[in-house]
Amino acid sequence: DNFSDQDWGNQQSTNTQNYESVEYWDDEWDDDSETGAPPPPPLSHGVHLVPVTKSSSLTDDCAIGRSDSKGTVGRRNLNRFSTFVKSAGESYIMGTVKINVPDSDKVFIIENELGVIWSPITQPYECMVASPKKETKLKGLKSFIAYQLTPTFNHIQVSRRYKHFDWLHERLEEKFNLIPIPPLPDKQISGRYEEQFIEHRKNQLQAFVDSVCRHPVLSRSSVWEHFITCTDEKRWKQGKRKAEKDELVGAHYFLAIQAPENIINQYQLEQDTEACSRFVHSMDGAVKNLMACSVDQTKKHQGPYKREYQKVGQAFYNFGQVFGMEESKGSSSTSLTTAIKELGDTYNDIGKMFEEQPKLDWEPLGDTLHIFKGILSAFPDILTVHKGALQKRKECEKLTFDHKMEASQMQEVTKRTDAVSYALLAEINHFHKERTSEIKISMKRFLQEQVRFYKNIVEKLESALTKFEE
Amino acid sequence: DNFSDQDWGNQQSTNTQNYESVEYWDDEWDDDSETGAPPPPPLSHGVHLVPVTKSSSLTDDCAIGRSDSKGTVGRRNLNRFSTFVKSAGESYIMGTVKINVPDSDKVFIIENELGVIWSPITQPYECMVASPKKETKLKGLKSFIAYQLTPTFNHIQVSRRYKHFDWLHERLEEKFNLIPIPPLPDKQISGRYEEQFIEHRKNQLQAFVDSVCRHPVLSRSSVWEHFITCTDEKRWKQGKRKAEKDELVGAHYFLAIQAPENIINQYQLEQDTEACSRFVHSMDGAVKNLMACSVDQTKKHQGPYKREYQKVGQAFYNFGQVFGMEESKGSSSTSLTTAIKELGDTYNDIGKMFEEQPKLDWEPLGDTLHIFKGILSAFPDILTVHKGALQKRKECEKLTFDHKMEASQMQEVTKRTDAVSYALLAEINHFHKERTSEIKISMKRFLQEQVRFYKNIVEKLESALTKFEE
Repeated sequence: DNFSDQDWGNQQSTNTQNYESVEYWDDEWDDDSETGAPPPPPLSHGVHLVPVTKSSSLTDDCAIGRSDSKGTVGRRNLNRFSTFVKSAGESYIMGTVKINVPDSDKVFIIENELGVIWSPITQPYECMVASPKKETKLKGLKSFIAYQLTPTFNHIQVSRRYKHFDWLHERLEEKFNLIPIPPLPDKQISGRYEEQFIEHRKNQLQAFVDSVCRHPVLSRSSVWEHFITCTDEKRWKQGKRKAEKDELVGAHYFLAIQAPENIINQYQLEQDTEACSRFVHSMDGAVKNLMACSVDQTKKHQGPYKREYQKVGQAFYNFGQVFGMEESKGSSSTSLTTAIKELGDTYNDIGKMFEEQPKLDWEPLGDTLHIFKGILSAFPDILTVHKGALQKRKECEKLTFDHKMEASQMQEVTKRTDAVSYALLAEINHFHKERTSEIKISMKRFLQEQVRFYKNIVEKLESALTKFEE
Repeated sequence: DNFSDQDWGNQQSTNTQNYESVEYWDDEWDDDSETGAPPPPPLSHGVHLVPVTKSSSLTDDCAIGRSDSKGTVGRRNLNRFSTFVKSAGESYIMGTVKINVPDSDKVFIIENELGVIWSPITQPYECMVASPKKETKLKGLKSFIAYQLTPTFNHIQVSRRYKHFDWLHERLEEKFNLIPIPPLPDKQISGRYEEQFIEHRKNQLQAFVDSVCRHPVLSRSSVWEHFITCTDEKRWKQGKRKAEKDELVGAHYFLAIQAPENIINQYQLEQDTEACSRFVHSMDGAVKNLMACSVDQTKKHQGPYKREYQKVGQAFYNFGQVFGMEESKGSSSTSLTTAIKELGDTYNDIGKMFEEQPKLDWEPLGDTLHIFKGILSAFPDILTVHKGALQKRKECEKLTFDHKMEASQMQEVTKRTDAVSYALLAEINHFHKERTSEIKISMKRFLQEQVRFYKNIVEKLESALTKFEE
C-alpha cells in the first residue's frame, strides 16, 4: 500500500508539472500574413513605469506600473518596459497629463448599498463562440482555425483566429491597468488529439468571452466592440491601428474614471486593500490546488480508473466464456452465460464512461478555474499600481505640510488618487461578485454532471442485473 | 500514463502474490488440549494407494488413489501415504473387500431426465453459523474463538472451533474419494484486523457449511450429522473416535454406492469425463482470475480509490475555507462557503464508502469463488481415481478375453466399475447444478450491492447539490 501511495503521489506531481510546463508557443503565432501587419512596436509614449517583478509585487515598492509578465500570454512582451520611461502615473497624480477623454471612453463609478461599484451594465449581452472551422487562404495554400463569434445584440457572426484574441488581450492589458484581464487559454502544441484540443480551446475562449461580457468596463470598451462586431477587413485594419495608437492606456486611462465626489477614508481603504491582498493570495493557492486536482483526476479517469473497470469487465467476460463451454449442463445455464458476459461488457462500458466523463465535469470546472487563476495572478500588480498612487499622494501631503504645495492643489491630488482607489474598490467588488456567482455556477454544473454520471452507472448495472433475474 | 500503467500492473501482481502466499498455519492449530486427543495416526488399514502428485493427476497414470495435498487444509497430511499400501481400489474392483455396509451409510444414485444424479435431498435444511464468540477454558487461562452452529431441523445450537472444522474436513476427504469436499477458509494469521478477520472467517465457514448442506451425500453423512448436532462432550469424543476408526473410507466406501442396473456406455462416459476435465481446467483458470481481480479491487478500493476521492474532498474543502475568508463580500457567499465545504465532506465520505464497500460485494463473491476454487482443485484427483478403476476393468477384460477370468466374474467387475462411474457422473451433475445456481446467486448479490453503492453515491451528491441551489 505504501508502494502504491508513492506511485500515485509521484504520478500526480509529475502530471502537474507536465501541465504547468506545457506553455509552448502557439504554432499559429508567427503566421501574421493574414493581416500583413508586423507585431506592434515597443510602446514608448511614456505611459508605464519600470516593470514590477512578480516577487516584489506585494512589497512596499512605490512604483506605479504594472508588469505584464504573468503567464504565457504576456511572455512575448517580457521586455516591453525594459527602457526606463517617465512615470505616467506620477504625471497623472500631479495633474500634468492633458489628454482629451471622449465621452465613449468615460467609465462611471457609483457608491450604493452594495458598496463602490462600476456603473452596472444596463444592456447585458452575450457572445457565443461557435465550434471552430478550418478556413483557408491564398487559394487553399494556407489553412488555419477560425472561431465564429456571434454577439446576442446583433446576431452578426464574425470570424477570429487565436492570434486575434491574443492581439485583443494585449490591447486590454495595455489599456486597463486597474482591471485584471481574464486570461486566454494557454498556448499549447495541439498534438495528435487535435480535434479534442480545438474543441476544448473553443470552450476556454468562450469562458474568456463570457468573462469580458460580464465586466461593466471591458464589455463596453471600443477595442472589444471592434473585436466582436467588425466584419469588414478594411475597417478591421483601421480599428486595429486606432487601438494600437490609443493614448488613453495605462495610467493615462485613469483620466477616464468618473468617480464619486466623497473623499475616501484612508484607514478603511487600507483595511479593504489588505483584505483583498490576503484573499487573493489564499484563493490563488486554493485555485491552483483544485486545478491540479482537476488535471490529476482527468488523467486518472482516462488512465487507471478506465483500466481498472475494464479489467473487471474482462475478468467477468472470461468467466462467462468458460460458462458457455458446458451450456447443456445445468438448467438456465445459457441465459446465465449471456448474463455474465453482459456483466463483463457493462464494466467495460463503464470504463469507457470514466474516460469520457472529465470532458463533462472536471474540464469545464478547470476552465472556470483557469479564468480565476489568470485574474488572481494579475491582482498583485494592480494593488502595486494603487500603492504607487497612494505613495505619491503621501509625498504631496508632506509637501503641503512643508508648505511646498498649495492646499487647493493637494485637494486635486486627493481627488485624482481617490479616482484610482475608487476604481480599485469597484474592481475588487466586481471580482467578489464574479467569484461568488461563477464558482457557484461551475460547482453546480460539476455536481450535476457527477450526479448524471453515477446515475448512468446505476442504470447500466441495473440493466445488467435484470439479465440475472430472467 | 505508461508510468502509471506499470505501477498499477506491478501492484496488482504483488497483491496477488501476497494473497496466494499467505498460507500460514492457524495459530490455534497446535492447541488440542480441549479434546485431549493427539492428531490421528497415519492410516495403515490399506484403504489408499500411493499418492498421486498434482502434476500427474490428469495423465494416464493408472493409480486408484487420491492425493490430499491440495491447498492448505491437506498440508498436514502431505506424507500420510508415503508408505506403500496394498490397493484398496483394486481389491474393491476385484470384489475381494468384504465389509458390511450399514443402511445408514448407503447412498443411492438414480438416472432420470436430468441424467445420473445422487438421490435428491428429501428434507433440505440449512445450518446457520452465528457471529463468533470468544470463549474461555481452564478457568479463563485460555481463550479461543468458537462459532455457533444452528441447524434448521432442530434449532439446537452447537459450538465449534476452527480446529473442529479442520478435523471434520479431514474425515470428509478421507471418506469420500469421489466427492470434491468444499474447502475451509485458508489458515491465516489474524493480524491486527482481528475483528474483521473473524467476521470474514465466519462468512467463509458459512459458505462451507452451506455447500455441505446442499450436497445429497455429504449432508446425510454421519460424521457431518455428528458435527452439527452433538452437544454432549462425552458423546462428542465417542463420535470422534468412531469416525476416525471408520472402515468405509476411500475406495472401501465405493461399497456403499447403490447405482442403477444399466450398464454404462463407455464411449459416452469418456466423452463426459473428458468434457468435465476440460471444463474444470478452464473454470479453474477463470475462477482464479476473477478471485485475483476481487482481491485486487478490494485493495484498490481501500487504497487508491479511497485516497483519490478524499484528495478531491480535501481540495474542495480547502477551496471552501478560502471562500469563508471574505464572506461579507458578495451576496449568498455564506451559504456558498458552506456548500463548497460540504461538497468536500461529501467526497471525503464517498472515499470512506469505497473503503467499506468490498466487504459487501467483492468479499462475498470471493468467498463463493473460494469454494469453487477448492472444489475444482479436487476434481483432477477424482478423475484420476475413476481412471484407475477403468484401467483395472480393462485389465480384467483382457484376462476374460484370454480366458483367464470367468465371464460371470467380469460381469461383477463391470458392475462395480460402473458404480464408481455412476458416482462420478452424479458428482459431475451435482457440480454443474451448483456452479450454475451458486454463481448466479453470487453474481446477483454482487450486482445488487454495486447498484446500491452507486445509488448511495448519487444520493450523497444530490444532497450536496441542493446546498448550491439554496
